[in-house]
Order: sequence, then C-alpha cells, then structure tokens
Amino acid sequence: MRLFAMALWRRGAAWLRRCRGKEGRGPGVLRGCAGCREVVRTCERYAVRRLPFARPEERDVAFFERLMPGRVLAGEEEAEAFNVDWLRSVRGCSQLVLKPQTTAEVSQILRYCYERNLAVNPQGGNTGLVGGSVPVFDEIILSTALMNQIISFDKVSGILVCQAGCVLERLSEYVEEQGFIMPLDLGAKGSCHIGGNVATNAGGLRLLRYGSLRGTVLGLEVVLADGSALDCLTSLRKDNTGYDLKQLFIGSEGTLGVITAVSILCPQKPKAVNVAFLGCQSFAKVLETFTTCRAMLGEILSAYEFMDEKCMELVERYLKLSSPVADSPFYVLIETSGSNTTHDEEKLNNFLERAMASGLVTDGTVATDNKKIKVLWSLRERITEALTHEGYVYKYDISLPVEKLYDLVTDMRARLGQSAKNVVGYGHLGDGNLHLNITAESYSHSLLDAIEPFVYEWTARCSGSISAEHGLGFKKRQFIEYSKPRKAVLLMQQFKAMLDPKGILNPYKTLPSAPERSTG
Amino acid sequence: MRLFAMALWRRGAAWLRRCRGKEGRGPGVLRGCAGCREVVRTCERYAVRRLPFARPEERDVAFFERLMPGRVLAGEEEAEAFNVDWLRSVRGCSQLVLKPQTTAEVSQILRYCYERNLAVNPQGGNTGLVGGSVPVFDEIILSTALMNQIISFDKVSGILVCQAGCVLERLSEYVEEQGFIMPLDLGAKGSCHIGGNVATNAGGLRLLRYGSLRGTVLGLEVVLADGSALDCLTSLRKDNTGYDLKQLFIGSEGTLGVITAVSILCPQKPKAVNVAFLGCQSFAKVLETFTTCRAMLGEILSAYEFMDEKCMELVERYLKLSSPVADSPFYVLIETSGSNTTHDEEKLNNFLERAMASGLVTDGTVATDNKKIKVLWSLRERITEALTHEGYVYKYDISLPVEKLYDLVTDMRARLGQSAKNVVGYGHLGDGNLHLNITAESYSHSLLDAIEPFVYEWTARCSGSISAEHGLGFKKRQFIEYSKPRKAVLLMQQFKAMLDPKGILNPYKTLPSAPERSTG
Repeated sequence: MRLFAMALWRRGAAWLRRCRGKEGRGPGVLRGCAGCREVVRTCERYAVRRLPFARPEERDVAFFERLMPGRVLAGEEEAEAFNVDWLRSVRGCSQLVLKPQTTAEVSQILRYCYERNLAVNPQGGNTGLVGGSVPVFDEIILSTALMNQIISFDKVSGILVCQAGCVLERLSEYVEEQGFIMPLDLGAKGSCHIGGNVATNAGGLRLLRYGSLRGTVLGLEVVLADGSALDCLTSLRKDNTGYDLKQLFIGSEGTLGVITAVSILCPQKPKAVNVAFLGCQSFAKVLETFTTCRAMLGEILSAYEFMDEKCMELVERYLKLSSPVADSPFYVLIETSGSNTTHDEEKLNNFLERAMASGLVTDGTVATDNKKIKVLWSLRERITEALTHEGYVYKYDISLPVEKLYDLVTDMRARLGQSAKNVVGYGHLGDGNLHLNITAESYSHSLLDAIEPFVYEWTARCSGSISAEHGLGFKKRQFIEYSKPRKAVLLMQQFKAMLDPKGILNPYKTLPSAPERSTG
Repeated sequence: MRLFAMALWRRGAAWLRRCRGKEGRGPGVLRGCAGCREVVRTCERYAVRRLPFARPEERDVAFFERLMPGRVLAGEEEAEAFNVDWLRSVRGCSQLVLKPQTTAEVSQILRYCYERNLAVNPQGGNTGLVGGSVPVFDEIILSTALMNQIISFDKVSGILVCQAGCVLERLSEYVEEQGFIMPLDLGAKGSCHIGGNVATNAGGLRLLRYGSLRGTVLGLEVVLADGSALDCLTSLRKDNTGYDLKQLFIGSEGTLGVITAVSILCPQKPKAVNVAFLGCQSFAKVLETFTTCRAMLGEILSAYEFMDEKCMELVERYLKLSSPVADSPFYVLIETSGSNTTHDEEKLNNFLERAMASGLVTDGTVATDNKKIKVLWSLRERITEALTHEGYVYKYDISLPVEKLYDLVTDMRARLGQSAKNVVGYGHLGDGNLHLNITAESYSHSLLDAIEPFVYEWTARCSGSISAEHGLGFKKRQFIEYSKPRKAVLLMQQFKAMLDPKGILNPYKTLPSAPERSTG
C-alpha cells in the first residue's frame, strides 16, 4: 500500500513540477493544464493569484503517509475527482488528498500544514455550487470521507452526535429507524456530508418547518488552523455559558476551522406525511396560495416549494419525468407533516377545497403513500440535474421579499432575450428563497456580463441576499458587499486573521481578496 | 430641564468624591456605602478589583447633557434604581445614567467613552438574574429605556424590526393585533427589553416550540465599543453571505457591543391554545408523561413545564394562589397551540385519557379560555416571585439530560438538610432545563459554601450546563470552566480583546477575570 502511494506520488510530483511557474499569471488557476480550460474560463472574471504558501513536497507526502498509511492519495489522476466541483464549473490542481479518520489525525495534519505554511482545502461530499469545496491552486485536500462514524444517538431527546463525514442520507436512514428525522433535507443528500452541511449552513427543504442549523446544531468539534481542537460538542438544548463559538463555524465554509464532529437535534418522525402538487395560473396566485395554506395548515406545513413552467419542461425533456397536473405557468409543491393522519388529511382537504373553489389553484394531485410522494418530490428536487443537460448553467441563489421574488426572473428574461437558452425560477418560496438559473449552450463572457452585476444590483436594491443558502465559496466572494456593509466584511476579515493568521484554511474562499495593487 | 440635571449632577459628584478611594480594597464593590451591604456580602466570594478605567467627571456629564439634554441622570438617588438588580442581590455605585433614543446617540456615547476610557454598563429592563445588568463599580449606565420604537412589521412574513428598548409584552400585544406572536415568552415580559433578551439569549416558555433566538433573530444592529455601528439588520430568513456576525452578539451579555435594534421572525398566532395542569406521583411519571405527550401531541405541543410540591406550597402561601388539582409530589403544565380547535382538543383529550388510564397522571384540569389559561400559567410563572418572599434565594439554572434533572434537587436537599429553608425544583423540562432554588432567611457564607461548587461539579459530571438560559453575568462568570473547555474560554477572551480592546463594555461580566497575581 505504501509503495503504491509512493508510486502515485512520484507521478504526481512530476506533474507538479511540470505545472510550477505556470500559475499565478492570470485568472488564477493553472492555465496550461489539461482539463483546466473550463476553470480558466470561469475564473477569468475573478483575478486571483496564488498566495505565497509553501508547495507540497515529497517529504510532506512521506509525513502524511506515516501518519495515515494508505489514506493518502498523491498524483494527478488520484486527485482528479477531488479537484472538480459537481457542476464541473471550477477545477483546482491539487495533487494531494488526505483522508483522516479521527479528530486527532485532523489535528496533526493541520499542525503540520500550519508549521509548513501549506494551504488546505477541507472537503466533504463536494456537492457545493459556488466552488467552495474544491481547491483553487494546489491546496492539500482534506477529505472527511472516512470520518463517517455515528458517535451516539439519544432516543429520548433525539440528539445525534456523529463525525463530520457522515453522509446526510445515511444519517436520515439511521435516525428514521429510531423514530426521528434529520432536521434538514436537500437534493444532494445522497452525497453531502453533515460536516459540509454545517460548514455551509445548508438550508434545504425542511427549513420552513424545523428552522436553520443555527438552532438545530447543538454542538461542534472543530480543529483550528494551528491544529488545536476546540471541543464544543455538547448535547444540550440550552447553554448560555459565554459566547456561542460554534456559531462562527456554522456557515464559514471551512475558512475558520475544520468541523470534525456534530451534535444535532433531530425532530420526531411525523406519523403522517402528505404532498400536494398544484398548478397556478400566475405568481400572484402562488403567493396567495401560500398565505392561505400557511393559515389553514398552520403547524403541519413542512414545505412550500414552487417552480415555473420552464422547469417542468426541462425535467420532462431531459429526465423523462411527467407532470401529474395540467400545464400551468407555475407549480407548487406543498408538504404536510403531522402526528395524526386523519387530522392532517382533513386540514389538507379543507385547504385544497378552498384553493380550488377560489380559483387559486386550477389543477392538483395529492400523495399520501411514500412512493407517490417521492415521485412528486423528484419533479422539484431534480430540476438542478435537468438544468445541467442544457449546457452551461449560471446559478443564482437569492433571498428576496416573497412579493418580489419572481420579478427578478421576469426582468432577467426580458433583459437577456435570445442570448440565453432558458431563464428559470424555482425554490423555497416559504423561506423567500429563489433559485434563478440561466442556461446556455456553453459559457460566454458576454452573457455573464449581461447577468452580473445586474442580478446583484437588483437584489441589493430589494435588500435581498445574493446567497440565501449556497454560500459565497470561490465564485461569489467578490460580491459580498452587495449584501453586507463594508464594516461587516472588515470584521469578518479580522475574525479570519485571528483564527487563521497564516490564512491556510480554504484560501480564496468566502471573503473577498484585497484589491490587486497596480504594478504599473 | 438642563438646570435640574446639573443640580442632580452636583449632588452626585459630591457622592462620587465621598466614595473614591474606598473601592478596590476587597470584594470589589464600595464597602462602606450605605445600602451596599448586600452586595458586599454577595461579592465576597468573587474577588474583583476595579479596573483602571477613568472616573466620570463633571465635564463628562456636561458632554452627555449637551448630547442628550434632559436624558442624563446624575447622582446617587437618581441612579439608585439602575444600580440594584431585580433580586436585590447585587448593587453597583454608578452615578450616571444615560438614556439615548437613537443609534447615533449610542454611537456618540460609546465613541466618547472609548476615547476617555470610561466603562459602560448597557442596561435593558434590568430583569437579569445573574447580576449582568447592573454596574459593579461606577460604570456609566447606558439604558435602552427610551429606545422603544417599532420600526416596521411585515404582515406577510411576520418579520418585526424594532429598537432594542421595546418591552417584550408591548411587542407581544402589538404583533398579536396583527395575527402573530413573539417567538419568546418569559415571566419578566412586562419589564424586559427585547435587546436584553437578545443580548442574554433568553430562553423562556416557548423555546420548545419556536426554537432559540439564534434561529428567530434575523438581524441586529449593534454599536461596538469604539462607537462604530454594525448594521446587520436584515429581514431575510436565509442569508449565507459570509460569517453570521450577529450570532456573536446574541448571548454576549453586552460585553461585545450594544444591541440597538432587532429584526425577529414572529410565528403566526395559533387559533387554538389549551393548557392542561396535571399532578404526577413521581418524577419518573413526569418523564413518562413527557414522552407520551410529545408523541401524541406532536406538532401542537408548545410548552412542557414542571414544578415540585414545594413550589406549589410557596405560591399558595405567599401569593395566595390555589392549586387546581389534588396535592401531588409533582405538577406538570402542558400547553398546546394549533390551527384547528377541534383537532387540538381531540389530540389533547386522547392524550389525557391515555395518561389517566395508565396512571401517569392522578389528577388534572384543562383550560381553553384565555382567563383560565392565565390562572394556570401564573402558578408556574410566579414561582420566582414567591421564592423572594422566603428571604434570600440562591438561584441555579441548569441544563441536564432530562433523566437526571431532578436528582440534583434530591441530592441537594439531602446535602443541605436543615441549613436551608427550602430546596425547590421547577423548569422547562421539555428543554432539559432545571431551575434549582434554595432559600434561607438571609445570605450566609457557610450555606453558599455547602452549595457551591458542589452544584457545578454535579452538573459538570453529567456534562450539563451551569447556565441554561440566565447567562453568567457577574455572579457566575468564574465558574465558566465547569461547562466550557479552557481553549474555548481563551478564544472568547480573544474575541473580547478584538472587539473591545479597552474592555469598557460591561466589564467584570461573562468572562472570568484573570487570576489575581500575588503581591507578596
């Protein structure tokens, strides 16, 4: 095993040598490397230079190989899958992937990297959409893939404690067997890691009902940049002893510390789940349907999602799914979760009768059995996947006051005209969260220029957020000031400097780089 | 008005001169001052010396009087009520109270104090229970009492934006008129300010249902120690653009910044509220009743409170309330809040039938009308008030795994025997939060020594929190390491040093003081 890794390393080291000196000349990622073209294209908008970190050397690989025999991947091919994001929109050139199993190993890795001034890219399931989960240059990839142990589960309180690399769906299955559910659910559940979910403050489909991770995460264990471990892994619902340090790591996208374990409060598994899929003739009716169902379904409402007709066209065309209702300009998916089947069905039926009678909804279907529920959910959950079939996708994840939510889609469609293939809108309407997606055959500078900064300016005018749940990662960090005042950004930079003085943790992510100084 | 204030000031200044040189000789608060005796007694356990801040002078009062004419209280008598906490357990000796109305005024006050090195004690409704809301020495009191404007309320989203000094009950009434409720409720609602609630991360009676302020507070405006304002007052349910700075101020007890405005998500007002008050024969039955009702009431359960028979005795004796059920060792208050009266009553009746039939509960009463609901709630809410009639109260607010919650009361009762008047337990069982209270005719060192650190060691052994919701304030800060590792405390101290380098904001609170160096 050791020999094998060293062989890989030799190949990798040769490749590293080949690439040296090529980076830092322009858009920030190895210009001449095979397969990097996409990245180059994407990155041209964000002038980024490699910071003066040390470069991984053979002695480093040897150190890690001693620390974690057989869990070190070195070389171009071995690191390939870890360098490219799920959307294939950004690509790093790391040649070194480490797969620790314990917090102690993560500590040793970071202590070593900190001393050597080696940059580190923490990586969970690599399902992020803003380029935060892959390296930009040659950062060492610290994968949580093997940190997948459940530490404890308390059946009375519903509190789960587990390592950061547990896959969300695996955790869901585990707690469901004990009569609970995870407080979050998202399309990427089959791959994403709970540590990554927490590091990016993932929102998803259940936020409307169970709130954000800021409330449901009870404790974290984090390894800081210098390798010291911070144990805030308590399992208490209430604890007001000093500042709540864990909050700083929730949503910090791996830039302040590496989350190694999570304590999270799981709600009870609802006894009854119903899903209604409805057609609406206008966005105004989508909104009115929301206020009506919020009032009539009250505490059992667990999701209110919407999608426009373009989304439906795409899932039908590319994924061969079929719409269960008559063609409509908008579709709404409503989920209820409750403790009494009869009561829930009665509430849902009362609401549906009202919605149909008052013309809010023109067609609809309801599912109560698990299989049909999954079919309805897949129409909404698989939009992201359908979009990738179009070619290149420009993705925006915006928070807006609900009344204005769809205006951005309409305005964008008018603005782009024929230059875009499709402009679609869907998302978590109940949370005021729009996913605006624009597709084209391939990436083009001019189309991006037509979209940005227009989309950010539009959002800022409505006091919205330019990233509701996806984070800023690599692609959006330079736009932070559309949603945060300069004073706040300066304070964030101070936190970063305090917790990671050498800046080795997930560099080039989340916070904007200092403006390039003119060399002229 | 100006003349009047200056007259007060002259009187106050004389008093300041009288006291100078007397403090710092021992337990930390003016030993020889009239009325300070209680404080001296309480503080003797916490050796604290006045830090070398500047002392307020006439020129400072003159500056503030120019800035806020008529809203400056100077002098002993004028500041009296602001120096003593609600429990009358701690007392400061400030002679200067400022009542700003705007964020700009708070900025100017802090900028001035920062430059002059004057310490500041931010104060809301002064309902805290750990001595965090009153000065320890002569800190200038910055009261939010006049910052009581509602800025906006969105009837679609239920998002309220208001100044920090709004009284919680006033806000409740306001949003209830629009069909919403505040996401928190606590006994002190008639006096406490929303800014103080957020600064102390108040828990209270609705946490079980609506979660903590970390999820419901959407935005904050905060003035930092140097007077600069940080505007994070957004009204979005989701916003992942950079680190969530507001979280650091939630629960920091005024030591990192002064909260000047709050944006908070209000749930819809439930159409049906029911309260059941039940008697249980043992704590084991209290627990079993909880798991049963959580399963059967599910999403409509909004509170699960418990109190022991001693609590009932005290509210009957001192407040002349009468128990609605037969005498029992334990009582439970269950509240349901839902959107359908018939469904909720059916769920509650099903649960009560089960609970009575299986002997979990031996007697009970149910209230559905508002007046009777208030009567039942007052039995639980007024325990704190009843306890003060006993003499001196040693208060502990502990998070524990629910199974062990009452063992601490039993153990403490056995340990103290006749040396305490009463040892009582009550609290938010649904959140694992015990309020342990020990009463005596008057304060005594030996009784305190019998209680502490025993209570903290007991809690630490069960991985509990020594402060579930009250915070650490002045009285508990030295015990933080029973619930937080040293590394975490060091990090908190770094945050404090970064945000408030001179340490002028609420000094002597939350974080432990550095160990006294020997002068020998």
